[in-house]
Amino acid sequence: MPLKTLEWTGDALRLVDQTRLPQEISYVDITTPEQMHDAIRRLVVRGAPAIGLAAAFGAYLGVRHSTPAKFASDLARVRDYLATSRPTAVNLFWALERIRRVGDSPQRILEECLAMVEEDNAVCRAIGEHGLELLLRGKPAGSTINLITHCNAGGLATAMLGTALAPIYVGKEKGVRFHVFVDETRPLLQGARITAMELMQSGIDCTLVCDNMAAMVMSRHRIDAVIVGTDRVAANGDVANKIGTHTLAIVAQRFAVPFYVACPTSTIDASLANGQQIPIEERAAEEITEPYGRRTAPAGVKCYNPAFDVTPASLVDALITEKGVIRPPYALGGL
Amino acid sequence: MPLKTLEWTGDALRLVDQTRLPQEISYVDITTPEQMHDAIRRLVVRGAPAIGLAAAFGAYLGVRHSTPAKFASDLARVRDYLATSRPTAVNLFWALERIRRVGDSPQRILEECLAMVEEDNAVCRAIGEHGLELLLRGKPAGSTINLITHCNAGGLATAMLGTALAPIYVGKEKGVRFHVFVDETRPLLQGARITAMELMQSGIDCTLVCDNMAAMVMSRHRIDAVIVGTDRVAANGDVANKIGTHTLAIVAQRFAVPFYVACPTSTIDASLANGQQIPIEERAAEEITEPYGRRTAPAGVKCYNPAFDVTPASLVDALITEKGVIRPPYALGGL
Repeated sequence: MPLKTLEWTGDALRLVDQTRLPQEISYVDITTPEQMHDAIRRLVVRGAPAIGLAAAFGAYLGVRHSTPAKFASDLARVRDYLATSRPTAVNLFWALERIRRVGDSPQRILEECLAMVEEDNAVCRAIGEHGLELLLRGKPAGSTINLITHCNAGGLATAMLGTALAPIYVGKEKGVRFHVFVDETRPLLQGARITAMELMQSGIDCTLVCDNMAAMVMSRHRIDAVIVGTDRVAANGDVANKIGTHTLAIVAQRFAVPFYVACPTSTIDASLANGQQIPIEERAAEEITEPYGRRTAPAGVKCYNPAFDVTPASLVDALITEKGVIRPPYALGGL
Repeated sequence: MPLKTLEWTGDALRLVDQTRLPQEISYVDITTPEQMHDAIRRLVVRGAPAIGLAAAFGAYLGVRHSTPAKFASDLARVRDYLATSRPTAVNLFWALERIRRVGDSPQRILEECLAMVEEDNAVCRAIGEHGLELLLRGKPAGSTINLITHCNAGGLATAMLGTALAPIYVGKEKGVRFHVFVDETRPLLQGARITAMELMQSGIDCTLVCDNMAAMVMSRHRIDAVIVGTDRVAANGDVANKIGTHTLAIVAQRFAVPFYVACPTSTIDASLANGQQIPIEERAAEEITEPYGRRTAPAGVKCYNPAFDVTPASLVDALITEKGVIRPPYALGGL
């Protein structure tokens, strides 16, 4: 049984605490917007689509006891508040905007939250189908598909199936064999802690590597594609994703390995002309200097810790959306 | 006072235990070849030039009580034994070969070991002078030189001054200002643990980053050059160095940042036509899955842990040797 990223209990949003994986599988029941803000900020829940869903439920938790007279102002306040939890993944803002548009009663918002979870499942499955077709194109039947992925754009980044890992899970159902090199993804090791766990639980052959091994892996192993998720895509196809993605894309181009981005259309921010306009979150130095509670760098060392980078569209061979595969040149304004 | 990587006490080779830096500064006195083999294998002493010196002293420790009748066979045996400690850095084999050629008595070998330490200091200083000139070329007086380095090719990788960091230390003496982005260098964090510590102790401005941030750093910051050390250079200029170097070199080329390799001529292996022939050490999975004693990956996960990679000569803008700067096309057979 795969872990449930999030589940509405009738009274709370139950989240797997992803900061404790894979050592400990524990759940937290979120009942207030403040708890949700904290859970998003601390990465208890992470992954752009899951953050969007969590924020939507967070907004509901902030208005569920509102009187009709105060509902609109309460909703505006809780939306503004939750919007400050993390800056880069656009799904957060997309979800809060969607909630605003349906928001004429608490019940209506809860229904929208639950609909968004269902929709996320459908979107991920469609990305899985389209992505699988892309990966299998031109491959002899029975081939093993050899991939590299970065961070976690799997089930735990969405409600269930994931984005970048969805083609693998859908392919597995159909008997396709995969081998996946999993970037550990410093500093917070979402690849080692979450992606490797997910793939192993699903019976997918995988090998954990350090992020800096990309060139070694591609020079010595046959790799069919790199596939990653995204936190925000600009109108021109520039892709913000977990720090290290841009480096990986450059190496993939050098080795002529196709670089694919699994991208729900909710992750496209057509209001931004290009990726330079995407706000990039910078996080605490301790994520680098104290990996898992053990200090490994000299006291007082300066750090630079951007949580995301921007891969230029010129390095992106395809965007895999729920509506189909989009190839360059990207002009996403009309989607 | 900088730490002394290694020091002959008259009876033992005293090593800084580099596995415990930066938290703890402790020394171990090595008195037998077995202890030296273990110290090299466990990275108590590391860095290609320092490994060579340590191995030379290890050979001396193996023959210091030999009778004249047994000296030659004892020396051959201890050399063969120490040659199995690590496979990639050619300085190990270079040093053991040099010991063989002078070896007609224990006293003569000890003298050679001590001469090699003095020579290493002179070689590092010459690399520092040549490298500094290269880095300053075309820069207005008073410029800050902005660098990225990977792993540790500093004082603790040699007897004293380092190779890749030598131009920085020599420049500092002359009043040149630097800023250095230090790759943490997974899995063993030699950048975070050793390079950052060395630079801070020397008053050099530096910023610690994760290895996967290379593209983000180069896209958002002015970088004058990448400078790294090496463990073995083939006749055609292909460079084996700490895992991650090849990835960094590819990113540097993408951003038109010069990529320099500090390279004592003892690190050139003219017997190998190209880098594909350089043996690459693979190390234990636990270096990746249990960073500093804390397990962060699922039990039983497969890992790929090559300790080095090979950067093709086409990505290397210059080799900085003690004899001067070498530019492509590289033909190192005659050095």
